Order: sequence, then structure tokens, then C-alpha cells
Amino acid sequence: MSKPILYGADYSVYVRIVRLALAEKQVDYELVPVDVFATGGPPEWYGRHQPFGRIPAFEHGGFALYETSAISRYVDEAFAGPALQPADAKLRATMNQVVGIVDAYAYRTLVWNIYVETVSKPAQGARTDEALVASALPVALTCLAELARLKRDGDWFLGDTLSLADLHLAPVFGYFTKAAAAQALLAGHPALTAWWERMRQRPSYCGTEPTS
Amino acid sequence: MSKPILYGADYSVYVRIVRLALAEKQVDYELVPVDVFATGGPPEWYGRHQPFGRIPAFEHGGFALYETSAISRYVDEAFAGPALQPADAKLRATMNQVVGIVDAYAYRTLVWNIYVETVSKPAQGARTDEALVASALPVALTCLAELARLKRDGDWFLGDTLSLADLHLAPVFGYFTKAAAAQALLAGHPALTAWWERMRQRPSYCGTEPTS
Repeated sequence: MSKPILYGADYSVYVRIVRLALAEKQVDYELVPVDVFATGGPPEWYGRHQPFGRIPAFEHGGFALYETSAISRYVDEAFAGPALQPADAKLRATMNQVVGIVDAYAYRTLVWNIYVETVSKPAQGARTDEALVASALPVALTCLAELARLKRDGDWFLGDTLSLADLHLAPVFGYFTKAAAAQALLAGHPALTAWWERMRQRPSYCGTEPTS
Repeated sequence: MSKPILYGADYSVYVRIVRLALAEKQVDYELVPVDVFATGGPPEWYGRHQPFGRIPAFEHGGFALYETSAISRYVDEAFAGPALQPADAKLRATMNQVVGIVDAYAYRTLVWNIYVETVSKPAQGARTDEALVASALPVALTCLAELARLKRDGDWFLGDTLSLADLHLAPVFGYFTKAAAAQALLAGHPALTAWWERMRQRPSYCGTEPTS
């Protein structure tokens, strides 16, 4: 079967989640660049792959798929290599909860409201929305407290085995920890901090650094 | 083991998704009312169950869980009864894609921007945000076209067997189809319309009608 195609930009948290899953499964793939922030939006042809105009989209031997959680689970289930989803129902539930927390709270709060506002915008000469940052801080505290509470003992989020919980969370932390506020927010969560130090050194993570 | 507890309000699309899963698995449970729209927000004690203040939250013999997709999958995997997730990787991927489409696009567009604006608000004497409705209509068309494209032949979304795709989508359709715009938007999608007619007559669906 032809190698899978991933459409998206490597700066995207969600594209990187899929790239991490593909790297962990040692699946060779083609990354087709799609910039959703380009003037006028993504190119017209991309509508055939993701009609809502978001990234990533994925294709594997004629099977087309979008929505990151669907793609990362499919990559785990359709390819050989280490399982990225635990068999135990409670561990799976915690993994799915972490994926849900990333989508519902952590991505918007830690990446957009904290990293983009306090790092990315000033670097481009744009003004930080201080009220937005202030309103994000308590949500960020809750996110980190909940992630710390849910983390199991062991090197990885669910214990001794890497899972989609690690892969969905890592790219969010990749941006968030560049913000000056991150250190104070992470204080008091040594297990989460230690997890992040391990995660950021993992070859799959190092090999998917954004180029743009 | 004690029977599971579900925290939430029966008007909630996301609470109903979990109730549908519990009903399909024939699991007896206790529904503890939590009204997130109450003046001042949900009661203080609820913060222990869902620190972001959203519904539902779930508990099963001391195992606490929130995020609907995590709960509905856990209910499927932890209890006896018919499997609500197909074994085939591609079918599972399409199921996960539908769950993702509901979360990322359909819920906001079909429930809030169309149903709430054109049905719920006028019924309460509030003014419809016509610009919001107008901007929602093309997204709604894309949602329905994509759902129609992804639907497999057969009585249920993925074919002959009911799955979480049906259960995550049904409560969204429950509100959306009360809007006058729904008929025109659904025109040209007879398979989706027929699916909805079947789904709304299913005992699990009839037995979880909102009371508020």
C-alpha cells in the first residue's frame, strides 16, 4: 500500500500530534504543506480533503480521514509497532480524558491565550491582550492541576508505556513552556515538569520541531 | 459494584450522549442534577467532579471521569452488552471522525447558532442574532454534506450496527431538527433523514427526552 499522506503545516499542534503518532509507529509518510493562515485561507484544492478548512487531513491507500483524534487512533490501530492505547478500560478512559482536556481547554488556554498572546504577538510587534491573558491564567492553573492529578506514576503520562495522552499533550506543552508564565504555573507540579523534560527529549518529539 | 452516577442536566446534548450509551448497554445509573446555567453557575460542590464547570461528570465505583467522549467509550468498554465501537480500524476511524465533527463543528453550528438562535431565543422573547444564523448556514451545509458522505449503507451510521457515531450525533439532531431551517438544510440527504427518523424512534432516544 502507498505511504500515507498528511496534509498540514508543521507549526500546527494538531498536525504534530499525528506526526508524533506516525513517528512512534515508525510509519513513513509524506507531509504535504497546507498553510491555513495564508492570505485568503488554505488553497482551494484542500477543500476536497478537509471541507471545514482546518488541518490536518490524512490519507492512507485511498482512505481519507480528518479530525486529529480519529487520525491518531487510526494510525495506532492500522499500523504495526508499539500500541499507543492501553488495553485496560480505566487507563484508556484517562487517556481519552486527557485528549478531551487538550481539545476542550488546554489548547485554547495554554497555546492561544498564553503562548500566542505573550510570546508570538510581541515578537511580531503586535499588542498582547492583557485581559485575555489574565482570564486565561486561572483556567491554565486548573488545566495543570487536573493533568497533574490524572498523571500516573512512571515515566509517561499513563505510567510505564507511552500513549496518545503523551502525544496529544506534548505539542501543547511545546508552545506553552516557551511562555514566561509557564514556569510559575508549573511550579508545584514536579511530576508533570519531569514528564515534560522526558517528553521533549524523545526522538519523535525532537524530530518534529516546527520549521516555520 | 455500586451503580454509576452521572452528574448533569437532561437538557444537555453531552449528558444525553452518555445516557444513550448507558441505556444501550442497559446499565442502571443515578442521574444527579447539575444546572450549569443556574445563576452563579453550577453549585460549589460540583467543582470536585468537574473543575472546569461543565457537564457531564461520571463516577463508577470510585473511578471519576469527565469529558463525554471518554465517558461514552468507558461505558462501552467497562460494561457488558452490545459493543458500541466497531472492531475494524477504518470503521472505528469514521466513528471517531463523526465524534470529532460533532465536537468541532456540528454542536456549535446546529445547536447553538441555528436551534438556540431561531427557536429557543424567540420562545423566550429574546432577539435572534440574524448575522450569526447567516454565518452558520454554510457551515451547517458542510456538516450535513460531510455526515451524508461518511454515512455507510444500512440502518445506522456505520452500517448494520449501532455505534457511538449514532449516539454522539442524535442529541445534536434532536435540537437541530426543531429549527425551521433544518428541513431545507437536510433536503438532498435522504439517507441522513431516514437515519434520523429511525434514531429518534429508538427506545434509548425516546427514554432520554429532556424534561427541562
